[in-house]
Amino acid sequence: MRVSNHTDRSRLVDAAAGRIPCDLRIVNCRLANVITGEIYPAEVSIFGQWIASVDETGGCALPEPGRIFDAEDAYLIPGFIDTHLHVESTMLTPSHFAEAVLPWGTTTVVTDPHEIANVMGTEGVLRMAEDSASMPLRQFILAPSCVPANPALETGGAVLTPEDIRRLLEHPQVLGLGEVMDFDGVCQNESRMREELRCALEADLFLQGHAPRLEGPALAAYLCAGIDSDHECRSGKECLDKLRLGMHVNLKSTSLSNHLAQTLEGIRDVPWRDNVSLCTDDVHAQTILTKGHLNRVVGEAIGHGVPPLDAIRFATFNAAREYGFRDLGAIAPGFLADLQLVRELDGGQPEHVFLGGQLTASRGQCLIRPQEDSAPRFPRTEIRMEQLRLPGALGISAEAEKDRGMSGRKCGEPEQRVFTATEKDRGMNCQESGEPESGISPELNEGSMSVFVLQYKENGGPFNGGRFEKLPVHGGRVDISQDPGLCMMCVCNRYGSGEKAAAPMRGSGLIRGAYAFTVSHDSHNLVILYRDAADALLAAERIRELGGGYAAVCGGEVLAELALPVGGIMSYLPVQELAEQIHAFERDTAELFSFPGNLLRFATCSLSVLPGYILTDRGVVDGRRQRLVDGL
Amino acid sequence: MRVSNHTDRSRLVDAAAGRIPCDLRIVNCRLANVITGEIYPAEVSIFGQWIASVDETGGCALPEPGRIFDAEDAYLIPGFIDTHLHVESTMLTPSHFAEAVLPWGTTTVVTDPHEIANVMGTEGVLRMAEDSASMPLRQFILAPSCVPANPALETGGAVLTPEDIRRLLEHPQVLGLGEVMDFDGVCQNESRMREELRCALEADLFLQGHAPRLEGPALAAYLCAGIDSDHECRSGKECLDKLRLGMHVNLKSTSLSNHLAQTLEGIRDVPWRDNVSLCTDDVHAQTILTKGHLNRVVGEAIGHGVPPLDAIRFATFNAAREYGFRDLGAIAPGFLADLQLVRELDGGQPEHVFLGGQLTASRGQCLIRPQEDSAPRFPRTEIRMEQLRLPGALGISAEAEKDRGMSGRKCGEPEQRVFTATEKDRGMNCQESGEPESGISPELNEGSMSVFVLQYKENGGPFNGGRFEKLPVHGGRVDISQDPGLCMMCVCNRYGSGEKAAAPMRGSGLIRGAYAFTVSHDSHNLVILYRDAADALLAAERIRELGGGYAAVCGGEVLAELALPVGGIMSYLPVQELAEQIHAFERDTAELFSFPGNLLRFATCSLSVLPGYILTDRGVVDGRRQRLVDGL
Repeated sequence: MRVSNHTDRSRLVDAAAGRIPCDLRIVNCRLANVITGEIYPAEVSIFGQWIASVDETGGCALPEPGRIFDAEDAYLIPGFIDTHLHVESTMLTPSHFAEAVLPWGTTTVVTDPHEIANVMGTEGVLRMAEDSASMPLRQFILAPSCVPANPALETGGAVLTPEDIRRLLEHPQVLGLGEVMDFDGVCQNESRMREELRCALEADLFLQGHAPRLEGPALAAYLCAGIDSDHECRSGKECLDKLRLGMHVNLKSTSLSNHLAQTLEGIRDVPWRDNVSLCTDDVHAQTILTKGHLNRVVGEAIGHGVPPLDAIRFATFNAAREYGFRDLGAIAPGFLADLQLVRELDGGQPEHVFLGGQLTASRGQCLIRPQEDSAPRFPRTEIRMEQLRLPGALGISAEAEKDRGMSGRKCGEPEQRVFTATEKDRGMNCQESGEPESGISPELNEGSMSVFVLQYKENGGPFNGGRFEKLPVHGGRVDISQDPGLCMMCVCNRYGSGEKAAAPMRGSGLIRGAYAFTVSHDSHNLVILYRDAADALLAAERIRELGGGYAAVCGGEVLAELALPVGGIMSYLPVQELAEQIHAFERDTAELFSFPGNLLRFATCSLSVLPGYILTDRGVVDGRRQRLVDGL
Repeated sequence: MRVSNHTDRSRLVDAAAGRIPCDLRIVNCRLANVITGEIYPAEVSIFGQWIASVDETGGCALPEPGRIFDAEDAYLIPGFIDTHLHVESTMLTPSHFAEAVLPWGTTTVVTDPHEIANVMGTEGVLRMAEDSASMPLRQFILAPSCVPANPALETGGAVLTPEDIRRLLEHPQVLGLGEVMDFDGVCQNESRMREELRCALEADLFLQGHAPRLEGPALAAYLCAGIDSDHECRSGKECLDKLRLGMHVNLKSTSLSNHLAQTLEGIRDVPWRDNVSLCTDDVHAQTILTKGHLNRVVGEAIGHGVPPLDAIRFATFNAAREYGFRDLGAIAPGFLADLQLVRELDGGQPEHVFLGGQLTASRGQCLIRPQEDSAPRFPRTEIRMEQLRLPGALGISAEAEKDRGMSGRKCGEPEQRVFTATEKDRGMNCQESGEPESGISPELNEGSMSVFVLQYKENGGPFNGGRFEKLPVHGGRVDISQDPGLCMMCVCNRYGSGEKAAAPMRGSGLIRGAYAFTVSHDSHNLVILYRDAADALLAAERIRELGGGYAAVCGGEVLAELALPVGGIMSYLPVQELAEQIHAFERDTAELFSFPGNLLRFATCSLSVLPGYILTDRGVVDGRRQRLVDGL
C-alpha cells in the first residue's frame, strides 16, 4: 500500500521536474540509504509531504527551494517504524503518546489497541483512532483479535465477535488483524479464530502473530492459517527457526522483557535479515521519557553487535516492507518525507525529526501539541466489582478433597489436590448461591491442604510457574501469614461479571500491605497482591474511586496511588507529568517489596495466553495447555 | 497480496498440525532458503497447493503422506518469477507459452500484453488472460499503459483510453499498470498519463516503469508520479542510481538486448540488493526451447559473478516482494508449493518442477498440455493496408526545399533539410488527396537532396541513430540503388488508418530483395526493409495473405515466410514446431543479409519511445525529444 493515498501527484511532479520550487532542501547531510546499505553525502528536496528529489551534494538542478536546512554533516535516516506496540501500555492517550515519541524519531507505529478493546470493545478502538488523528504521528491500527484473550479462561470488559472484527477491518487506519494470541484456537481451527482469520484473509490484510515458544507442527499450522509475523521470540533458536519458516520476526525490548541479546545472537550469521524488524510492545511512559522509544531498541541492538545500518534498516525499511508500505521507510523520490537527522548512528536522540516534510521535533522537544484535550473522548471509567463487598470476599476457603471427585477432572491430569478460589467457591458467595456453609467439611477448618501456588518468574525466567504445596488452614481458610515468601493474588472482574479468583504466590517480593492495580493484560481486571486482606479491600476501594489505576495500602492507609481514569489503564496527563507520578508511585511503594521492581512487574500475571501458570478471574490457567488447572 | 485467496484454510491447518495426512513429501533435498540465505538439508510436506511444513531431514512429526518424492540430494529452490515480459514476443499464445517455460522452472510471470493491445485493444488483453487460464502457470497481467506508445507519433490498431485502463485494473489477474513508456508524458503531467496513473494510484496498484537513460529531475519526477520499477538499465551507473532512488530494478537478458554484465557490475558492491529482480522482456520461442527462460538469465547472472543464491533470490523472493506476493517466492509453511529440484545452482534445467503442489514438468517435459486449442480464442487477423495499393506507394518522392518553409518548423529545430515520406506526402497519394503532381518542383526530379537517413544500431549500441545525408534523386524519387550500405525502410499502418512513412536506413545488412514483418513494437504495423520496391510490395501482399507474420522476397519470389495469424504477432503452434519454423525462416533469409541476425533484429526500429531515431507510420521520430524530426 501507498501510505500517501494522493492520486493527483501533478504538483509534486512539477516540483521534482523543477517547474515549481520545492518547499525545503536538507543539505550537507550523510544519507543512510537503507535500500542499498550505503552512506554518502546528499541533499534532499522536499515538496509538501513528499521527498521530491535526492541528489549528490551540490548536484541538485532544481530551483531554489522555499527553505534550506543545513544538516551540518549529520546523518539523515528515515523515521522509525514500530511494528508492534500497545499505546495503552505507555498509559498515555494516543495523542500524548505521539507527543512523547516523535522527539525520539518514531514517525510510524502499528498499534494493537487490544487493551482498550478488552475494557470497552470496538468503541475503545475507535476512540483511540480518533484521538491519534489529532497528532501527525502515523498511527496504524490492527484489529484486536483476541478479546478476551481466551474466552474460556477469563471474563473481561468486552467481547469482540468476528462480526465486530469484520467491521473494524474496514476502518481506513486498520491494516489487519492484531496479534493472534489464541494460537491454540488457530491450530485447532476453533470457530472464533477461524472466522476472524477468514475475515482478514478475505480482505487480504496483515495477520499479526503472537506465538511464544511455538514450534513443530503447531507452528506450521499457525503459519498455514495465514499468520505473517511474531514478536515473542525469546531464544536465538526460536528466532532463527521462525525466520527460516518465513515469519516476519519483530524483535523487542519492552518494559516487561528483553531478549534482544539472545534473539540477535541466534541470527547473527544469517546472511539476509530482511524479515527482521523491531518493536516496543509494552513500554512505560517513564522509559520513553528518559531512554527513548524505538531508537532505544535500535541502540540496544547496536550494543549487541548489530552493524548500525542494519539496526536502522530493521527499524525502517524492513518494517515498512513487513506491512507493505511502499512509500515509507526509505529516503527516495516519491516517498513520504519522514526523516531524522542524527549525529551518530547509535540510536541516540535525533537532533531533528521531520514528518511528512514538516519539522516536527528538535532536540528532544515536540514542536506540535495535541490540538484538543483527550478527556472528552475518554469519559472516566466506572469500576464495578460488587463481588468484593461480600463478607469473606478475599482469601481461599478450604474444600474437602472428597468433593473434588465431582469436578470432572480431565483425563491425564495428575492426581493432586487442586485448589483455587472462584466465584462459585463455596464459602465465599454462599449468600448469593444459597449454598449452606456446611459445604465446607469441618475437618478442613484447621490443619493443612494442598493448594496450587504460583511462582513469580520461575527460575528468573519471563513466565510464572506454579505447583501444589501443602499450606496451613485456619478458620476454614488458607493461611499464608507464617510464610514471608508468600502473598495472596486475587483477580477480580471489574466490569460487573462478578467473577473472582485467588491463589497464593511465591516470590512476588511483596512483604506487607496490599498492592492493587487495573493494568493487567489483557482483561485489565483488578489484581490485588496482598499480605493483609483488609489492606487489599481498601486498595480496591481506592482504585474504584480513582476510576482505575494503581493503589498501594499498608496498615489501613493509602501509601501511594496513580489514577488511570481512561479505561482504567491510561492517564489524561502528558508524558512528563505522568512519568513524575509514576516515579513517585514507584518510590513510595518500594517499602512494600523486598526487592526493587517497576510498575508493570505484575502486568502479565493474569495474561491467560502466556506459557507457564496464570491467574485469571476464573482460576489458575495452565498457559501451555490453555485450560484451567483445576477444571472447575 | 496473497496469491492463494483461499479464506478457509482449515484443512491445510489440519494437515500441518498432523490431524490429516499431507499429499506429498519431498525428502532428501538441500533447501535453498531465499529468505535467510542459507542452504540446509530438509524435507517439505505439501498439502493441496500449499507447503504445509518444512522440517529438518528426518525431523517431520507428521503422519505418512500420500506420496514420498525422493529428491536424491538435489537442491530445492522456489519456482522462478519473471517480473516483466511480453508473452507475445515469444510468438506463442499464453497457453503454449506456459507449456514452453514450465519445464525451465518458471512458475509465475508478470506480463504486459501491450503487443496484443496495440493490435486489438482490451479485447486482445482479455483473450490473452482467458487463454492463459487454460494452463497452471501463474500469469499475472499489467494493464498496457501506452497504447499506442505515443499517440502523437504513430497510429496502431487500437487506442486504450484511461477509462479502458480503469476497467482493466478491476480484472482479477491484473496487478497494476504495465510499463509506463511515455515517461515524457508522465514528467510533463500530460493528461493521458496523468489520468491512467490516477486510476492505478486510486486502486493502490503496482506501477511498472520503463525509463531508459532517465536521470536527474526527469527521473525524480517519474518516481514522484508513483512509478515503482524499471527494466531498462543499460549501464552500471544507471542501475546503481535507480536502485539508490528506490526503484525496483528488473535486470534483463532478452533476445533483443543484454546488459546484464554492465548492470550487475554497477551493483556488485552494493550490500543490499533486495530490489533487484530478473526478467526476460522479449524472447524468442527458439531461445526458450534451446536455452531456457528465466533460468537462462539466472545462469547468466551467475556467470557474471553473482553468487548463485543471490541470483536465485533475484528470481524468486525479490520478485515476489516487488509485487507484494506474500505467499510466493520462498519455501515456507503457508506458501504456495511452487518448487524446483535442480542438480546444481547454475540456472540449468531443473529436474522437476512443482506448481501449486503438482508435479508439472520433469526433465524438460511439461506434463500438462493446454486443455483447449487457442485458435477459437484468437480468430485470424485481417491485415488492412490499402495505402500500399496506390501507384508509387513505396519510395520517397522529392519535395522542393522552398516548400519546407510552410511546414511549421519548431523553434530550436536545426536548419536542415528534412525529408521523410508520409501519407500526406505529395506525389504518393495525389490521386486521393487531389493535389496536382505539380506539387513536386521539377528541379527535384533529378539531382540530389538532403534526406534523413536512419543508422541501424549506431556505434554497435542498442539504439538506431540518424542524420541528414545528401542522396541522389532520380525520377522525382530518392535513389539508393547505387549505395549498397543503404536500404529503404517503410512503416505502414496495417489496421486501415492509411498512414505510411519511409526513410533510408544505413547499416541494416540487407543487400537484396525485401524483408517484411508485422512484429514491430509496439504498434505492430507492417515494416518492410527493401532494396527492391517490387519485392517489397510482394512481401507485403504475402503477409496480408498469411494474416501477419514474416515474409522475405527476392527477385519476385517468396524466399521464406512465417505465418503469425494471431494478431499478426503470434502463432497457433506449440513451441517446438514454431521454433522449427523460425529456424527455417532465419536459415532461408540469411542470403538477404550481409551479416547474421535473428528474426527480431528490427523489431524495435519502429518503437517510438526508445531513445535514438525511430521510424513510425507517421515519420522519423527523435526518441529523446519524443517528436517527429521534420514536424510534418
